[in-house]
This record gives sequence, structure tokens and C-alpha cells, in this order.
Amino acid sequence: MLTRKDDNNKKTIIDCQGQLIGGEKIIVMSGSCSVESESQIMETAQLVSAAGATILRGGAFKPRTSPYDFQGLGEVGLEYLSKAAKQYGMLSISEIMDASDIEMTTDKIDILQVGTRNMQNYSLLKQLGRVKNPILLKRGFAATYREFLLAAEYIMNAGNPNIILCERGIRTFETYTRNTLDIAAVPILQELSHLPVVIDPSHGVGLRQYVEPMAYAAIAAGCDGLLIEAHPTPDKALSDAQQTISPDLLAEIVRKGRAVAKAVGRTL
Amino acid sequence: MLTRKDDNNKKTIIDCQGQLIGGEKIIVMSGSCSVESESQIMETAQLVSAAGATILRGGAFKPRTSPYDFQGLGEVGLEYLSKAAKQYGMLSISEIMDASDIEMTTDKIDILQVGTRNMQNYSLLKQLGRVKNPILLKRGFAATYREFLLAAEYIMNAGNPNIILCERGIRTFETYTRNTLDIAAVPILQELSHLPVVIDPSHGVGLRQYVEPMAYAAIAAGCDGLLIEAHPTPDKALSDAQQTISPDLLAEIVRKGRAVAKAVGRTL
Amino acid sequence: MLTRKDDNNKKTIIDCQGQLIGGEKIIVMSGSCSVESESQIMETAQLVSAAGATILRGGAFKPRTSPYDFQGLGEVGLEYLSKAAKQYGMLSISEIMDASDIEMTTDKIDILQVGTRNMQNYSLLKQLGRVKNPILLKRGFAATYREFLLAAEYIMNAGNPNIILCERGIRTFETYTRNTLDIAAVPILQELSHLPVVIDPSHGVGLRQYVEPMAYAAIAAGCDGLLIEAHPTPDKALSDAQQTISPDLLAEIVRKGRAVAKAVGRTL
Amino acid sequence: MLTRKDDNNKKTIIDCQGQLIGGEKIIVMSGSCSVESESQIMETAQLVSAAGATILRGGAFKPRTSPYDFQGLGEVGLEYLSKAAKQYGMLSISEIMDASDIEMTTDKIDILQVGTRNMQNYSLLKQLGRVKNPILLKRGFAATYREFLLAAEYIMNAGNPNIILCERGIRTFETYTRNTLDIAAVPILQELSHLPVVIDPSHGVGLRQYVEPMAYAAIAAGCDGLLIEAHPTPDKALSDAQQTISPDLLAEIVRKGRAVAKAVGRTL
Repeated sequence: MLTRKDDNNKKTIIDCQGQLIGGEKIIVMSGSCSVESESQIMETAQLVSAAGATILRGGAFKPRTSPYDFQGLGEVGLEYLSKAAKQYGMLSISEIMDASDIEMTTDKIDILQVGTRNMQNYSLLKQLGRVKNPILLKRGFAATYREFLLAAEYIMNAGNPNIILCERGIRTFETYTRNTLDIAAVPILQELSHLPVVIDPSHGVGLRQYVEPMAYAAIAAGCDGLLIEAHPTPDKALSDAQQTISPDLLAEIVRKGRAVAKAVGRTL
Repeated sequence: MLTRKDDNNKKTIIDCQGQLIGGEKIIVMSGSCSVESESQIMETAQLVSAAGATILRGGAFKPRTSPYDFQGLGEVGLEYLSKAAKQYGMLSISEIMDASDIEMTTDKIDILQVGTRNMQNYSLLKQLGRVKNPILLKRGFAATYREFLLAAEYIMNAGNPNIILCERGIRTFETYTRNTLDIAAVPILQELSHLPVVIDPSHGVGLRQYVEPMAYAAIAAGCDGLLIEAHPTPDKALSDAQQTISPDLLAEIVRKGRAVAKAVGRTL
Repeated sequence: MLTRKDDNNKKTIIDCQGQLIGGEKIIVMSGSCSVESESQIMETAQLVSAAGATILRGGAFKPRTSPYDFQGLGEVGLEYLSKAAKQYGMLSISEIMDASDIEMTTDKIDILQVGTRNMQNYSLLKQLGRVKNPILLKRGFAATYREFLLAAEYIMNAGNPNIILCERGIRTFETYTRNTLDIAAVPILQELSHLPVVIDPSHGVGLRQYVEPMAYAAIAAGCDGLLIEAHPTPDKALSDAQQTISPDLLAEIVRKGRAVAKAVGRTL
Repeated sequence: MLTRKDDNNKKTIIDCQGQLIGGEKIIVMSGSCSVESESQIMETAQLVSAAGATILRGGAFKPRTSPYDFQGLGEVGLEYLSKAAKQYGMLSISEIMDASDIEMTTDKIDILQVGTRNMQNYSLLKQLGRVKNPILLKRGFAATYREFLLAAEYIMNAGNPNIILCERGIRTFETYTRNTLDIAAVPILQELSHLPVVIDPSHGVGLRQYVEPMAYAAIAAGCDGLLIEAHPTPDKALSDAQQTISPDLLAEIVRKGRAVAKAVGRTL
């Protein structure tokens, strides 16, 4: 098992163009669910960067439950995202859904994301094992820890060791929230593997008003990063509006999160 | 919604080279989990055909949780399957995991299967909307009925109306069985859509000794077909041995299943 | 383990005043969710008896999720139920929620029911181990087979061997139905224990239009009895209206169910 | 709905003999799963008190899945617990499973606990509505927030307003842990109701090594208290040994937890 720790119990630190993921510092990734337009993602980058995020997220290919919902801007969306990230000295992260899109994405986008619905899309995982970009692998919404790590194993075994695990909520009987955020995944995955573990409280709960306390909980539990959906005007977001926060709240989360991080021996 | 019934409440009957799926007659699909060798699938075809199956299943590309497990024979497996099916006057069905494999598969295999882990692999679904072969779409192991039908909608919306829905068990808290087979999916999906609904009791329970009663339950609930894993020597099957039955038991299921089918106004 | 089969693999047959539960014949228990009035339960008894039911159900103490919902008629409800059952030559079954109600219930009611919410109310189970009436123990809506059987073990260990297991649906992620009816519980519990297994399709699905096919599925899977909510005017039932069927549909289920039972070697 | 906040959005603060639950200060409840002997609980009280706990837990009536497991010391266990708590200036908390035990418990024990399996034991809840002791109500392991609050409503509606809600993990498909601890329950229940919310990380994860990070997560999310199983020699605990921590680790959790609490504007 390539994901398992060696005898020295050493954690993997991914050096992504100078940003270290898995080290002492907790990384903040933020941005809107979808890249909606050049000006929208540019404004988003400016605001989340000012709030403390250093990696810009934005979806160009959107895996929507219904084929009749907005499917993303596609390649041009990747270009807008890339441009916005560079403009504000950030790295970029975006989801890839199809192996045939990999080639055009690797140059534009710094970190490639595999979504929850594709965690067991083994063809895609194998292809991503051949690129150099770090991969943020989201846990399937009904995947056990073991299945999650075996999915990471598909990528590593194909040649790419730079994997960031992301817990984003699992499906349970509770329907008040979109998902049940499994915070225990942080210490458990960090014990079972040497990979960095990031928490996505936005999808994890799915309701804007709980993103803040869940972000603090994730930090206190020892996560290596946060992935948070923010938008200049959250209510007008084209997708996931209900769980999207404002850049002002993001700034507050970073500020107060620093104190929580310090309490458990980390920085942010 | 293309999957929804029209005002006449008409069910779709898929004519697959003369075999009607969704009509009065319940179709039996059977074969081994994996195509293991030419002789193995040939023998399997002979035995399950004699037992009453008319569609031969066999996996050439296997979506395995671990990258270190047997991944299937690939293209040559498809050829063996195709040859065996033709030899015994059967149709063939096999899983496709990657859009790049579609082209070489459509001519060899009659019905293409989308596995439970790929039910929300929207790129794959869209590509399968462009082929002429019927698609057997397995329910994601944690997908709601609504999500299942929206996945079918992706295929239909892309141009392929010939979709067979397959319930194969969902993931619950119970661990004694591999999955919990949701028999109620039969009448519910038949009410919510016009598509045929097939039951896979092998994956649904995951334990050989319960396949028989669950097959009868599926027939009694009104299913349009059964998908059952059988192997000449079940204990030696390369994958899913624990849930694989013998051709003799399959013959018994078909025989007794006919009486159950008759009791609810169907044939088998 | 007292619930486990002995070496002869013998099934327990409970002789309840001449009615055998667990034998060749499948028993039909029916009636309304609540006893609403003397005339209502009397009319219900007449109609479900004519439809083929031989055990009359009706709740006098109702375990309602909200304290502000109708809580049942209490002791007088038990008297109405008892009188109605006797009038039509039926046995009676009713839920008991509190150990302090046992004494007044054992003489009036033939079979005592433990509801899904009380499956792990061990104090109640131990008390019920001291009565002579058979106990119908409903599976907790999130209880594994093992926990279910250990709950039965509490009753048996305290002295009462006459236990009927009842699968009534489990809680899963699916929200279209009230519960997911786990039909596989029938053959599994019959293998793991010697106790009769009854299916409650009314709670199991929670929607009237699916009770019929699920009843046939239960019979085909080998159940020893059915527990079905019926009411003279289903839409006016004081509780569980949505899942309650008419006596006419019950008669149809019994009629067609007989043919299904015959197909699998049983009577009804 | 009595559990709902009034227009002033005021939180309930329960004054339990001078200890305020629901105020600025986070309360630590700790002790062993079972009261094992007088000396054992006395030693436990001494150690957890020194570690920073102010409420002593210990079970005298144990709701065990199997009737053949240790069922607790009963009434004498309550006496030992009471004595140990008084000796070290602590309050006591213990589970009550049977209405008939209430009378002998109310004088001995300060806070009465309703276990997860009895959350919908409405007879018990109604009886507890008539006592003066605060009630710690554990969430059913498969109960929704709504059902949880309605259970509290049963107690309040019967006359007892002093209810502490306790999230202790829910049952999901994941089997690596005993339960999935739903940290989001903290902000959600605090928004939906005015009642204090306590987290039990011991049952929530069920594995000793994750209790510490989950305790910090709970504090960061805003919980009003922690309920943690500790034992002088954890490996020798008669029940729940696997999830029981040492008094030393408890002291470390309190120490570091204070810094986390401060970061989110609370004390501990």
C-alpha cells in the first residue's frame, strides 16, 4: 500500500510551486462553485485572496445531477480561472471529469480535482496517475476510508504521488443538511496514510450558516487545509448558492481560525 | 423529463435483436462476474443457456476497489464473450468503464453496462447516449431514485432511448450482507418512468445462499429481468465467488420462478 | 444463543390458540394503525376478516414522534380491539410501550407487539419475557440482524420462547419512501434463527400503492406472515393514512398472494 | 414547540447546583462507562476531577446489546457513584433505563441520562418530565435532528425544562469507527433550539486515539460540554475499554481545550 506511512511515520508534504500542503501551515482554498465569467472570477480572486486564501477554486466542468442544469463554461472557464489566479498570485484548482480533458488542463491549472461522484472512476484515476499536477481527491459521498485510500492508491500506483485527500461530507439518513461532515476523517486518514487531508465544510454541510463553526472544528481536528465556496454576491451564485459564503465571512474565518490553529500547534 | 411516462402510461419495450426487454416475459441474464478464459466463458454460456438464460454476462474491464486485484482480460475478454454468446444463440452484455473503449465494444457486445460506481460519470453517460446499443444502467450504491433517473436522463438526452434500469443493492448500515437489495425499486421506478427494471440479486445480497429467494421476490414484485452471477465451479470464480451460484441452481430458479411469474401475470 | 437453530435445523412453530405461526401457512395480520372507536374497529374487523386476515391489529398506545400528535385511546382501545377480534373469530395484536401496561394487556390481547423504537428497550423486553403471550418484535429501524436477534434473546432468556420477528423497513439515505423494506431479512433471519419472520410492507414502504407488490415479494421470499394496515376508509385513518390500504385491496392481495405462496411451496 | 428559541434568541442556561450548563464555560463530564466497584469509581473521581472534570459519569444500569454481557451493578452502583462525586465536590450523572428506577435515582444522582437506544422510549421520557433533575438526552443513533428535538419536547411538555442535548455519533455505512460523530449537530441544534448541546466523542468515534482531536473539534464548533469516558486503567475497563482514555490524556485535553475554547470566545 503506497498510501501507508513508512516506519518513520512521515507525513507527505506536497510542494506546489512553493506552497507547502501537509506542513505546519493550513492552506485555504476558496472561490466560487462555478467560474461564471471572466469578471466574476477575477473579482472573486481579488476578494478571497484579500481574505487570506492562497489557492483559487472554480469549476469549469460541473458534474450536475441533472443534465438540464448549468454544466459550466468548459475550456474558456479554465482560462479565466488560470488568469485570475495568476493576477492575484494564487494557485488554481479545478475539477476534471473526463480523461480527454486532461491534456488541455494540466498546463492551465495547478491542482486537478476529482469530484465525489468520480472517486471510483478508475479509468480517470489511472490517467491522473500520469500527470505531474497534484490531485485533490474528494471522498465519494458513500465511500469508506478504505475505499477512499484505495482510490488514492490507483493514482499513486500509476505514478503520481502528489495526492491531497478531501473529506466533503457523506450521505446519511439526516436530510436537514446536504451531507454529514465526517470530521473524524481528519485524524483517521492522517493515521492510516501519509497524505494531507483537507476539509470542505461548504459541501459537508451545504448550508451557509454552519460553514464557519465547521471550519473551526476542522482546524481543531488537525486538517491540512480548507476548501470553502465563496462568491462576491453569494445569493447570486449560479450553483451551490445556499452553501456559499461572502468574502467578508471568509476573512473572519481566517482571522479566528488562526487562533484555533495556534491552540492546536499549527499556523494558518 | 424523457424518462417520465406519457399520458398513456406506456412502458418502453426494448427490442434487442428480437429479445423484448420490458414486455410480458421476464428476461434472464446470467454468466460469470469476469470472463476468465475462452473455455471458461464458453462452458458458462452452454450451462446458463441450458438453464434458461438468454443473455450472457461477463466482465472484461473490472472496476475493482483495489488496483492490485484482477482487472479483467480487456479487449480479448470481449471477444471471448461475444463468441460464446453467439455459439449458444444468446445476446451478450458487458460493462464499459471508459469512453475510449466504446468504439471497440459496440460491435462486439449487444448490451453495454454502466456499473454502480460510474452511475454519475456524466462524461461516460453522454458518450453512451451516442451509441445504438441498449444500455443497462446500474443504480449507484448510494443513489436515490431521482438521481438514478437523472443519470438515465443524461443518456437519453444525448440520443439513446434504450435504457434498462438495474437495481443491485444499496449501501446501508447492515454489514452482514454486501448490500441491501431494494426490491421496492421495481414498482417505484416502473411508476416514475417507462423504462424496464431489472434486479441483480447477486450483488444485491452478495451471499450465494440468498440469491434464490431474492430472485423470486424480484419476480413477484414485477421486475422485467434478472441479472444473476453463475459459474461452472462457483467457488473457483476469479471474482465475486461468494455470491456466484451454480448453473444447476440457476435452472431451479428459472423453473420455480416461472410459477411465481405466472402468479403475478407474467411469463419467464 | 437461544434464538439459534439446533442441529436438526428445526423452525419454531408458535401455536397461538390454534393458529400456527411459522408453519406451512402464511398468516395475515391486518387492521388499522390506531383503534379509533368501537364502531371503527368493529367494521375494520369485519372487513379484513372477510378479506382473509385472521389476526386483527390496532394500536391503543401509539408511539408518535411528536407529543402533540394523537396518542391512542389507551386501555379502552384495547377493550374495543379485543371485542372486535372475538366477534369475528380473530386473534388480536397490539403494541405495548410501557412495562406498567403489561398486566392489563395480557388478558385482553393475544399477541403483544414491541415497536421499532423500543426494540432496544431492554427493561421492557425483560418484562415481556415473563408473560405467556407471544411477542411480535419489530426490528429497530436502524438495527442490524445481530442486534435484532440479541433483542429477541433478551425476551427468551427471561422465559418467553414465543417470539415472532417482524421486518418493517430500515432507515437509509432514500427519502422517497418512508423506509427501505429489507426483504432479504426473511431468508437471513430464517437461517440465523428458528423463529418465524413476518413482513410489514405498510411501514416498510410507507406508500399505499407499493404495498401490494411488496406483499407478493415477501411471500415469494418465504415469509411466515404479513402485517398490513387496512382501514374501511383509508384516507380518513387517524394515523398512517398514506400507507393504509382498503379492505378490497387486501382481499386482492390475499387472493393473488395465494398463487405466489403456492409457487414457492406454501399456503396462505 | 417548547424547544424553539423565543424572539430574543435566548439560550437556556441550566443551573445545576451552581454549575451552569449552557453558559460561557464549557463543562467537562467524565468517568468510566460502568461503575465497577466502590474503590474503582472513587479512584476515577479523584483522577478525572484532578484532570478538570466537574461532573462524574458512571453507569449502574447498562443497556447492553447482548443480555449475556455485564449489565451493571444496579442500585448499589448509584450509591458508589453518588458517594464518589460528593467526595470530590463533583456532580453525578448516570443513565436511567426504566421508569420504575426513577424514584430511587432522583435523590442519589444529580443529572439523569437517557441513552441513545431509549431516545424514543416515550413512556420513559414522559416520566422524566415529572422529575426536577436535569436530563441529559442522548441522540438516537439513527435519529434526525427533528426527532431528537421532538423527544426533548416529550420531556418538556411533561414539565421538566432542564434538558441537555447530547450528540454521541450516528450510524452510517462506515464501519471503521463505532459511529460517525456529527459535529455539525452543535451549531444546528443550537440554532433550532435554546438547549445546551454536549458532545460525547468517546461513543462518537469509539476508538481511543481519536477522542482528543474530536474533543477539540467539538469545542471549536461551539459545544456547551464534553462527555468523555476515562478510567484509571483504560484497558481493564469492564465495558467500552476500546474508547476509554486515561486521566492523563483527559488532563491534556482540558489543558489544550482551554486554548481552543478561548479562540472561539469561550472558557473551559
